[in-house]
Amino acid sequence: MSTFTFPVETTDILKPLDPDQFRTQAHLVVDFLADYYSNIEKYTVCSQVEPGFLTETMPDSPPFQPQPLESILQDVQEHIIPGITHWQSPAFFAYFQSNGSTTNFLAEMLLTGFNTVGFSWLASPAATELKIVVMEWLLKLLQLPKSFSFSSDGGGVIHGSTCESFICTLVAARQKKLNEIETQNLVVYCSDQTHFSLQKSTQIVGISPDNVRAIPTTKSMNFQLCPDALLMAIEDDVRAGLVPFYLCLTVGTTPTTAVDPIGVLCEVAKKFNMWCHVDATYAGSACICPEFRHFLDGIEGANSFSFNPHKWLLTSLDCCCLWVKDRSEFTKGLATDPELLKNKASESKQVVDYKDWQIALSRRFRTMKLWMVMKSYGVSGLREFIRRHVKMAKYFETLLLRDKRFEVVVPRNFATVCFRIAPLGESSDEEDVNRLTKRLLESVNGTGKVYVTHAVVENIYVIRVAIGATLIEEKHVNMLWDMVQKHANALLAS
Amino acid sequence: MSTFTFPVETTDILKPLDPDQFRTQAHLVVDFLADYYSNIEKYTVCSQVEPGFLTETMPDSPPFQPQPLESILQDVQEHIIPGITHWQSPAFFAYFQSNGSTTNFLAEMLLTGFNTVGFSWLASPAATELKIVVMEWLLKLLQLPKSFSFSSDGGGVIHGSTCESFICTLVAARQKKLNEIETQNLVVYCSDQTHFSLQKSTQIVGISPDNVRAIPTTKSMNFQLCPDALLMAIEDDVRAGLVPFYLCLTVGTTPTTAVDPIGVLCEVAKKFNMWCHVDATYAGSACICPEFRHFLDGIEGANSFSFNPHKWLLTSLDCCCLWVKDRSEFTKGLATDPELLKNKASESKQVVDYKDWQIALSRRFRTMKLWMVMKSYGVSGLREFIRRHVKMAKYFETLLLRDKRFEVVVPRNFATVCFRIAPLGESSDEEDVNRLTKRLLESVNGTGKVYVTHAVVENIYVIRVAIGATLIEEKHVNMLWDMVQKHANALLAS
Repeated sequence: MSTFTFPVETTDILKPLDPDQFRTQAHLVVDFLADYYSNIEKYTVCSQVEPGFLTETMPDSPPFQPQPLESILQDVQEHIIPGITHWQSPAFFAYFQSNGSTTNFLAEMLLTGFNTVGFSWLASPAATELKIVVMEWLLKLLQLPKSFSFSSDGGGVIHGSTCESFICTLVAARQKKLNEIETQNLVVYCSDQTHFSLQKSTQIVGISPDNVRAIPTTKSMNFQLCPDALLMAIEDDVRAGLVPFYLCLTVGTTPTTAVDPIGVLCEVAKKFNMWCHVDATYAGSACICPEFRHFLDGIEGANSFSFNPHKWLLTSLDCCCLWVKDRSEFTKGLATDPELLKNKASESKQVVDYKDWQIALSRRFRTMKLWMVMKSYGVSGLREFIRRHVKMAKYFETLLLRDKRFEVVVPRNFATVCFRIAPLGESSDEEDVNRLTKRLLESVNGTGKVYVTHAVVENIYVIRVAIGATLIEEKHVNMLWDMVQKHANALLAS
Repeated sequence: MSTFTFPVETTDILKPLDPDQFRTQAHLVVDFLADYYSNIEKYTVCSQVEPGFLTETMPDSPPFQPQPLESILQDVQEHIIPGITHWQSPAFFAYFQSNGSTTNFLAEMLLTGFNTVGFSWLASPAATELKIVVMEWLLKLLQLPKSFSFSSDGGGVIHGSTCESFICTLVAARQKKLNEIETQNLVVYCSDQTHFSLQKSTQIVGISPDNVRAIPTTKSMNFQLCPDALLMAIEDDVRAGLVPFYLCLTVGTTPTTAVDPIGVLCEVAKKFNMWCHVDATYAGSACICPEFRHFLDGIEGANSFSFNPHKWLLTSLDCCCLWVKDRSEFTKGLATDPELLKNKASESKQVVDYKDWQIALSRRFRTMKLWMVMKSYGVSGLREFIRRHVKMAKYFETLLLRDKRFEVVVPRNFATVCFRIAPLGESSDEEDVNRLTKRLLESVNGTGKVYVTHAVVENIYVIRVAIGATLIEEKHVNMLWDMVQKHANALLAS
């Protein structure tokens, strides 16, 4: 047992939600954050602190007496901000971006202010109905098939993460398959480019790693999942007595934004009566523009589809939108009907109880964010936002293509560019090129002025430049380009 | 395919994170919310809208052109707020409360403003290190054993929900057991009072409902899990060739806030080498007061412990704190090591990568909320907050106990009171009493001035009064009491 004890009590009157104090203090924090955004380019993009910078310096117990807000904000400025990697910086090119926006911020304020816990319709009807409205709006914006709509047998839900969508669809697919056949040998298929959260999700739901097939892809096929390779893998498993039940396709993979050919792959899944989930975590947002919608062609063959507005649609974590074609099938494995939550509305079956569509019972009123973002920026604004990034990425890609020092490793599909130091002809040692490219990345990141990350595909080390920060302008792309050239020159000279 | 199309594009310049606009608009929303709190008692606590109130009235597609903030806020006021159940109302006595607070709100502003995505230490070092600091603070505040601390082999993490903590500990427990023995027959134990999210979590991880034992409890034992009954159930299963692997205990059950005797039940779990998880979702917050800490006695025998500050510790959804005794064992089933996230800090093994402690890879910087709440209110303030509610609950219980019209069904442990219309001697028909009590609940809720919910335990229908809204004062308890009396009189007279 811990022997730590706190001193005796005080008797101050605490008013933790007093409207006047709320008003004064919240105004203070608004100004604090507006200043943060004004100064954001002065900060080192990727934090350079050492492990232990906070754990070794912060007090080891909470204060007994209340601390004034001013001193807390001072701590934030002096101790927290240096340890933050500034995802909102216009020079953040790492991973995939996470778009904040003013409207998203306002919506977060409202939803936190209302602080409703909407497990069932009754627990906060607006939270449920607005979600239905918003998911139908998005369905139209993405030109998803009507079969995914609440007006047919489908419907949409907002999850916290792609992992949650994977888990919930895996559970539904398993339930469906086990209703058809009794087996312990269910198999999941994806490509070796599929995000590793699929692997994690299968572990969580209890599928053995031995029963997950990550079909190899190649650079020559732009890292797309090949239908023939999938078919062969499935047929091998069927011959061995295993039961294929879930296929995960990706539109815009994390390493290189590759797009699996949905239509033909769904056909394969259908042949074996498998659940097919299409994950467009990153690239789904781009598909609100008619010129990118073709990447979703064939989606009508899938059982479920998800994408994350919290990456590229001006909405902050956490916001993953999932649609399913058969909502009754989907909710079977997740539904609960406890006495505690019984109420007339639920019993009437006229309402949606979203607790049966997700992992947790409770959920934040996240819908508010998407609803306000769509209203505030409008379809025109959202499309403009996406196109701006794609245009800059195209520009950056062109600069690389024109320069013999670099190789664009895969053709750009959206606003992420993958490049490396160009090999010097066929005699070039690939490992040397990888080492050089890695040193280029470290050297550029070492400046603290930008942040880029990497991927390794078919043994090729690539620098990924994800262009999508909310505040990015052309000048930041030029800054990155100048820096890449300068550091490459230094490396190639040595 | 949907045939919906949007009109042609505009060319307005969008500045979705302009500091000046951010400042102006965020100030506007601060005032909107401060006014909401000032007027909160004027609203109907539990929304009285009919199903379809929004889905049938909202436009069926998003606007093409941007809408001004003023019109959006007007929509919120006129269309959303009437459909909200006001969880922050001081007359909200339903379910368990969800505490907002000014400081929590400020923290939500900061974390949304920074909008970092902290999967690994490097992705935002402050998000990781501050979490470690905060979880150690809370460990001290709750006088949890040192074995749950990072300074030993344990450690803490913030999850989004109790469901997530159930799932992650179930996965860890399964992994541990399957390392010892090969079996398909793992069994989970809990009581019939355990929250139904455990049942849901077992379904998700792939445990058959046939392998979940909800041991019956009784009013005569205050709905505690009985060690002998548990032992018998386990021994029956072992004889049948099944393998016990997970026991879930509850401190403060949802129906009646019953407390399972942790020490002796952990002993039973230990005998069969099972993982024992203690869930104190609601009541954990109370245990920061020395006078309630005894409810956690025996916790050193458990493998993991969780509670939700988002219920009763001035912190909004989502915030569930979980500690485990063996962090290496815990993270085994959840860890991933993808090339994309490789970095020197992670490879050095000197840092915690929280992606391996939870379901999703990404997480909001939720730590900010707990850190600021603890600093701003101090240990003294937090304890005062809890004690205030307990005192009011005690007062309400006393009023009921002194009145022959009512029966307090179980002794109050914390700040939730369970009562019903008192049966008229032994000849009274229990079903009649249940019907009357249910009508009392409906009648009181029908006023729109308060909101209470119910539970059914051992066939007894009880009204649950959870006293814990942030804004509650003694006058609100008096209002509820007046209303209960008045409506009971009307019912009993008819």
